[in-house]
Amino acid sequence: MENFVFHNYTKTIFGKGMEDTVGKEIKAYADKVLLHYGGGSIKKSGLYDRVVKSLKAADVEFVELGGVQPNPRLKLVYEGIELCKKENIGFILAVGGGSVIDSSKAIALGVKYSGDVWDFYAGKAQATEALPVATVLTIPAAGSESSPSSVITNDDIKIKSGYTSNITRPVFSILNPEYCFTLPKNQAANGICDMMVHIFERYFTNTENADLTDRLCEATLKSIMYNAPKIMKNMSDYDAWAEIMWASSVAHNDILGVGRKQDWASHAIEHEISAIYDIAHGAGLAIISPAWMKYAYKDNVPMFTQFARNVMGVEGSFKHPDELILTAISRLESFYKSIGLPTRLSDLDIGEENIELMAEKCVGDGCCGGLKKLYKQDVVEIYKLAK
Amino acid sequence: MENFVFHNYTKTIFGKGMEDTVGKEIKAYADKVLLHYGGGSIKKSGLYDRVVKSLKAADVEFVELGGVQPNPRLKLVYEGIELCKKENIGFILAVGGGSVIDSSKAIALGVKYSGDVWDFYAGKAQATEALPVATVLTIPAAGSESSPSSVITNDDIKIKSGYTSNITRPVFSILNPEYCFTLPKNQAANGICDMMVHIFERYFTNTENADLTDRLCEATLKSIMYNAPKIMKNMSDYDAWAEIMWASSVAHNDILGVGRKQDWASHAIEHEISAIYDIAHGAGLAIISPAWMKYAYKDNVPMFTQFARNVMGVEGSFKHPDELILTAISRLESFYKSIGLPTRLSDLDIGEENIELMAEKCVGDGCCGGLKKLYKQDVVEIYKLAK
Repeated sequence: MENFVFHNYTKTIFGKGMEDTVGKEIKAYADKVLLHYGGGSIKKSGLYDRVVKSLKAADVEFVELGGVQPNPRLKLVYEGIELCKKENIGFILAVGGGSVIDSSKAIALGVKYSGDVWDFYAGKAQATEALPVATVLTIPAAGSESSPSSVITNDDIKIKSGYTSNITRPVFSILNPEYCFTLPKNQAANGICDMMVHIFERYFTNTENADLTDRLCEATLKSIMYNAPKIMKNMSDYDAWAEIMWASSVAHNDILGVGRKQDWASHAIEHEISAIYDIAHGAGLAIISPAWMKYAYKDNVPMFTQFARNVMGVEGSFKHPDELILTAISRLESFYKSIGLPTRLSDLDIGEENIELMAEKCVGDGCCGGLKKLYKQDVVEIYKLAK
Repeated sequence: MENFVFHNYTKTIFGKGMEDTVGKEIKAYADKVLLHYGGGSIKKSGLYDRVVKSLKAADVEFVELGGVQPNPRLKLVYEGIELCKKENIGFILAVGGGSVIDSSKAIALGVKYSGDVWDFYAGKAQATEALPVATVLTIPAAGSESSPSSVITNDDIKIKSGYTSNITRPVFSILNPEYCFTLPKNQAANGICDMMVHIFERYFTNTENADLTDRLCEATLKSIMYNAPKIMKNMSDYDAWAEIMWASSVAHNDILGVGRKQDWASHAIEHEISAIYDIAHGAGLAIISPAWMKYAYKDNVPMFTQFARNVMGVEGSFKHPDELILTAISRLESFYKSIGLPTRLSDLDIGEENIELMAEKCVGDGCCGGLKKLYKQDVVEIYKLAK
C-alpha cells in the first residue's frame, strides 16, 4: 500500500424527507447563499419549493442562478462568480446533479481568487481557498457530492478539464433517493456507468498491495450491477435507488482509491468526445471503458483476471486468462446494453473524423493513464476499438 | 435502507514516516497539548521521541500524562481533566492504541463539562462540546482513531461503559503500520478479532435492504481474514499490516453501518466479562461472537446463510441452511484458534460462577441486541454456550 491522506469531511444526510433540513444545516455556515441549479426539473419535482421553504424557515437569504447545462460551461461559472461578489455571498448551495455541483465548485473557487478561475482547470494555478459548497443531489452519477473534483467545459476553446482540491469537497450533501424516480431512463443509465467507471479508474492499478481497497471496489461494483436492472424495471424502486445513490458517493469520495496509483485514462479519453460532440459523459464512458480494457489488459493480466472472477463472476479456467478477461469485458458490454447504454461510437453516429484530433487534445506530446501509459497512438487505437 | 447521517471528518494520514507530520498538523489547532499515552512501549519503539521532536519543531508545547491501562480507567480520566484545566490545555494527542484514545476522548469531554464526566457513560447526560482529539495509532483494533465512540471502566463499581458522540471523532489520525511490528502476537490477534466483531455487529441486521453496506462488510472481513495469517507468520510484514491497520478504521468509522439497524449485543455481553476478569476485550469477543451466532442465527437464517457463503466461503447446499451456517461458525472458530485466540471461557480459566451476575449487569430488567433482542435469560444461555 502506498502512503495516503484521506480526508472526506462531507456530511452525508441520506433518506426520505432529508431535504427539509437544508436551511438549518446552512444556517451554521452562512446567512446568505447562492442557490445554483440547472433547468426546470427541480421545479417540476417540487424540490425547489421544499428547499426554498426550508431556507426561509431558517432565515437564510438566497440569490438564484439557474441554467447549468450538462458538461457545465465556464461562461455561467463567470456569471456566478460576479453574482456572488456583487451580492456578497458566502456559501453556495447546488441543487441538482454533477454538472450543477461542478459549476458550484468552480464558482466557489473563483470568488476567492483574484485571477481567472480557468487557471485552475488549465493547470496554471493551485487554489488555497474556496467558498463552502453544499448540495442537494438529484442525479446519482458524478459523485461530486462528496468528491474534491469538478469538471468544466470551456466552450471558446472546446476544452473540458478537471480540477481536484480537497477544499472543494461539499461541507454537506443531502441525498433523497425519491428525487431519482423522475429521471429519464437514459440519464439514470449514464449515471450508473459514470459511477462504475469511477471505480474502474481506481481499481485497475499496478500497485501490488491494495487488498482491502480491491475488495471494497469489487463490493461496490457488484452492488451497482445488482441494483441497476431493478431500477430499469421500476423507476420508483426506492430501495434500489438508495443503493445506487449511496454507491455514487462511495465510488468517488476516494475511499476506493486510497493507497494506490490510479488510472483515469478512460475519463481523459472520453472527455475529448463529449467536449466535441456534447454527448453525455456516462454514455461516452460506456463506449470507452470496454475499449480501454481490451487495449490495456495485457499489461496487467492478474488484475484483469481478478476483475473477471470477482466482479463479473466468470468462472472459467485460470489457465486461459485471456479467455476469462475477454468474457468479462463482453459481459460488461452486455450489462451496459441491458440498461440501454451505447457501447460503440457508431451507436451515437460518431465517425472517425476527429479521432486524430481528439487523441492529440487528450495527450498532446505527453501521455495519460496509470496501469498502462497511453501516448497519442495508443489513444488513437482505443478510439478505433470503440468505433 | 434506513435514513442516516454519516459524518466522518477524521483526516487519516497513513503510511511510513507520517508520524513526523504530527506537530505541523496540531499547530493548525493549538499551541499546547496534552500528550497522553500508556506504558513504555512508545518509548521503546522510538515513537515517543519522534512525536516529541515533531511537536518541538512545530513549536507546540506539551504536558505529559502516561499510564493508560487496557480497559482504561475513569480515575486516570479524572486526573487528565484536572491537568488540562490546570494547564489550560486545548487539544489532546493520544499516542497508542484504543485504550489511550478512549481515555483521551473521555478527558476531552470532561474538560468541557461542569459535571462528572461519568454522567455521559452512565447515560445521564449528552455532551455538546469536547476538546479536539488527534491520534498516533500503534495498535489496530478498536477503530477508535476514527470513530465517535469510547469505552471507560469505572473501577469503583466494576462497570465498563461506552459513550458515542460525533464530537469525539479525532480530527486527525496518523497510522504508520511499522509501529505494529513490535506488538505482542496475542495483542495483534485480539485486535484482529475486535475489528472483525465491529463489522459483525453492523452486518447482522434485520434491515431488509442494505446491499452495498453488506457487500462492503463482507469485503472488509475477507481482507482481514486473508491478511491476518500473514502477520502471524511474519510480524514485520508491512503490506499485511497496512491492510489490517486500514481495515481497523474502515471497520469502525461507521461506513459499514450506515442505513441499517445495528446489533452490538456481543460487545455488551463481552464487556461484562472483561469488566470482572480484566481479560483483553478482543479475546472476550472471540469467545462471545461464535456463541452469540449459534444462539441468534435462527432469527435470521438468510442473513447467516449469506455470511456463510460470502464471508466464510461455505459452498454447501442452500437446502440445508443450518448446516451451512454451523459450518461457517465452526470455520470462524478455527480461524480464531489459528491466530491464537481463545474460543471458550474455559480457555481463559473462567468458570460459571459469575454468569448470572454478568447477565444481570448486562441487561438488568431490559434487553440488548438488534437482530435478536436478548433478555437476561438469553444472555445467560449465550454465556453457557461459551463455557
